[in-house]
Amino acid sequence: MRGAVLHAPGDVRVEERQDPRILAPTDAIIRLSATCVCGSDLWPYRGIEAVEGPSPMGHEYVGIVQEVGSQVTTIRPGQFVVGSFWASDNTCPICQAGYQSSCVQRVLIGTIGAQAESLRVPLADGTLVATPDLPSDELIPSLLAASDVLGTGWFAAVAADAGPGKTVAVVGDGAVGLLAVLAARQLGAERIIAMSRHQPRQQLAVEFGATDIVTERGDEGVARIKDLTGGLGAHSVVEAVGTQESMLQAIGSTRPGGHVGYVGVAHGVELSVEELFFSHVHLHGGPAPVRRFLPELLDLIWNRQIDPGKVFDLTLPLEQAAEGYQAMNERRAIKTLLRP
Amino acid sequence: MRGAVLHAPGDVRVEERQDPRILAPTDAIIRLSATCVCGSDLWPYRGIEAVEGPSPMGHEYVGIVQEVGSQVTTIRPGQFVVGSFWASDNTCPICQAGYQSSCVQRVLIGTIGAQAESLRVPLADGTLVATPDLPSDELIPSLLAASDVLGTGWFAAVAADAGPGKTVAVVGDGAVGLLAVLAARQLGAERIIAMSRHQPRQQLAVEFGATDIVTERGDEGVARIKDLTGGLGAHSVVEAVGTQESMLQAIGSTRPGGHVGYVGVAHGVELSVEELFFSHVHLHGGPAPVRRFLPELLDLIWNRQIDPGKVFDLTLPLEQAAEGYQAMNERRAIKTLLRP
Repeated sequence: MRGAVLHAPGDVRVEERQDPRILAPTDAIIRLSATCVCGSDLWPYRGIEAVEGPSPMGHEYVGIVQEVGSQVTTIRPGQFVVGSFWASDNTCPICQAGYQSSCVQRVLIGTIGAQAESLRVPLADGTLVATPDLPSDELIPSLLAASDVLGTGWFAAVAADAGPGKTVAVVGDGAVGLLAVLAARQLGAERIIAMSRHQPRQQLAVEFGATDIVTERGDEGVARIKDLTGGLGAHSVVEAVGTQESMLQAIGSTRPGGHVGYVGVAHGVELSVEELFFSHVHLHGGPAPVRRFLPELLDLIWNRQIDPGKVFDLTLPLEQAAEGYQAMNERRAIKTLLRP
Repeated sequence: MRGAVLHAPGDVRVEERQDPRILAPTDAIIRLSATCVCGSDLWPYRGIEAVEGPSPMGHEYVGIVQEVGSQVTTIRPGQFVVGSFWASDNTCPICQAGYQSSCVQRVLIGTIGAQAESLRVPLADGTLVATPDLPSDELIPSLLAASDVLGTGWFAAVAADAGPGKTVAVVGDGAVGLLAVLAARQLGAERIIAMSRHQPRQQLAVEFGATDIVTERGDEGVARIKDLTGGLGAHSVVEAVGTQESMLQAIGSTRPGGHVGYVGVAHGVELSVEELFFSHVHLHGGPAPVRRFLPELLDLIWNRQIDPGKVFDLTLPLEQAAEGYQAMNERRAIKTLLRP
């Protein structure tokens, strides 16, 4: 089959890879209907994360089950399924507590590589959620978004305790930040401040439910959020970037007793616990346990209550994955959908 | 009046200080029945926090109201009162959310100095809680504990989400850590692991409700907690020290999705957000909003349901404050009560 492989920073190639096959009796093989490029794929693409030899890329996927292992009981060939970027058993105490991305048996889909024609999904019963029926084509981008960016933005909003009566600020206008805006709206937040200086992203933030746009960053961004919240800061702040500046901006924008939900994959970020101590914020985040939210998110998408697929502003054939990476890297695209 | 003043690291003297008087119409003057030395007083005493000229010391207090300012409406002379180490209005949005120690009008009692015969308490209506009647003498240590260490240990246990069905681990066997054990028990925790290698403190931990004692520290302590929790870590971990080692021990001892409640005043502690990200813990703490818990805590003490005063294992006249500091510094005493 064809699949994307990163050979070195900036060097993504679509090439022949071995067809996936059942390795464990809990595996499933899926023929992918769509896959995409993640903001986190840009870390190794930019050389900020080390690339050790040719690496299959991609961890977001939707598609039709082709084959299942002998111990798979709830998923069957022919179903259209969505899964998270961490395979999880969904039965261990950590999964049961809603942290499937830290499942004791977890497997990172990114190491298998979902930017391809087909994909082996470990722990299929725990990982995959089937739609009620085969979806119409126009639903596929939104279902694909649920696989990571929607689920991650949703987790960030939940971790930030977004809800009725709350003012929510979102640091980061990538797909995850934009979908955290959508999540905050769905969770009933009263006011949603998107921090963005890019006009098309501001527009999408407003479509998703942002009530205010703040273009300032860093200390100026913090001051602006304080201005908008009676000097106190937002109740809930989502951090969806992963840099030192964005983390401090998020913490600084939060009122004492408020919540920061952080999902930007941190790179070289250090926090002074003394500052954190006196900020009085709640801090929670990490790799989003997307599986926790999938049933609810698929339901909202299936019933056309949300349209997270709008974050895909570039669609390319899988063969042109390299251009998809480049467009995102140059911020010409928010997010690239790839059609195998 | 007489009061304790820190002149330089290691040099605490009880000397004449000016009698307190009403400065603002929201002030009250209290004649102190008891005060004490806090673990956090040891930071400047040890020279780890800078001492800039002679500083009045102490921030924990109970006593009888002598006089109130013209705008004080709920507190009146003759009442026995307990207050927190932060004066707070208890009406601003931050107070209303339960974070009185970040009140927009807050005043740090430590800058006024409660190791003395009398004390001016700002924002008296918001800060002070009166007991139903004058307490018997034997209740005074427990009521004094509510002013800081009990309230701080309680906040730590709440921040760590201690409750029914939970395994709670407590890092730190000072008065706050020990009272976090008591709080976890009151909050209904199933299993409470006290981390201590000091026999008298272990014994008090058990009296307060600890079900297990772990003597190992650092990575070995983390490994032991994992052993005791099926490899997963505790649901809830209290950090009541404030060092790099204790913070990492607390985070490492927590299962993914679990909660760390940290109340040790951090000094020079830095956290890698990357490690925090993948730990998947909730992190919350800071200066305890003791005022939030005071009514409930005074009730428990008044009805003899808890006896937090046991943490005072040394009682001295105020005049001997220097010996009280020294005994705590040398870990000969857990906590020193001073009688003016």
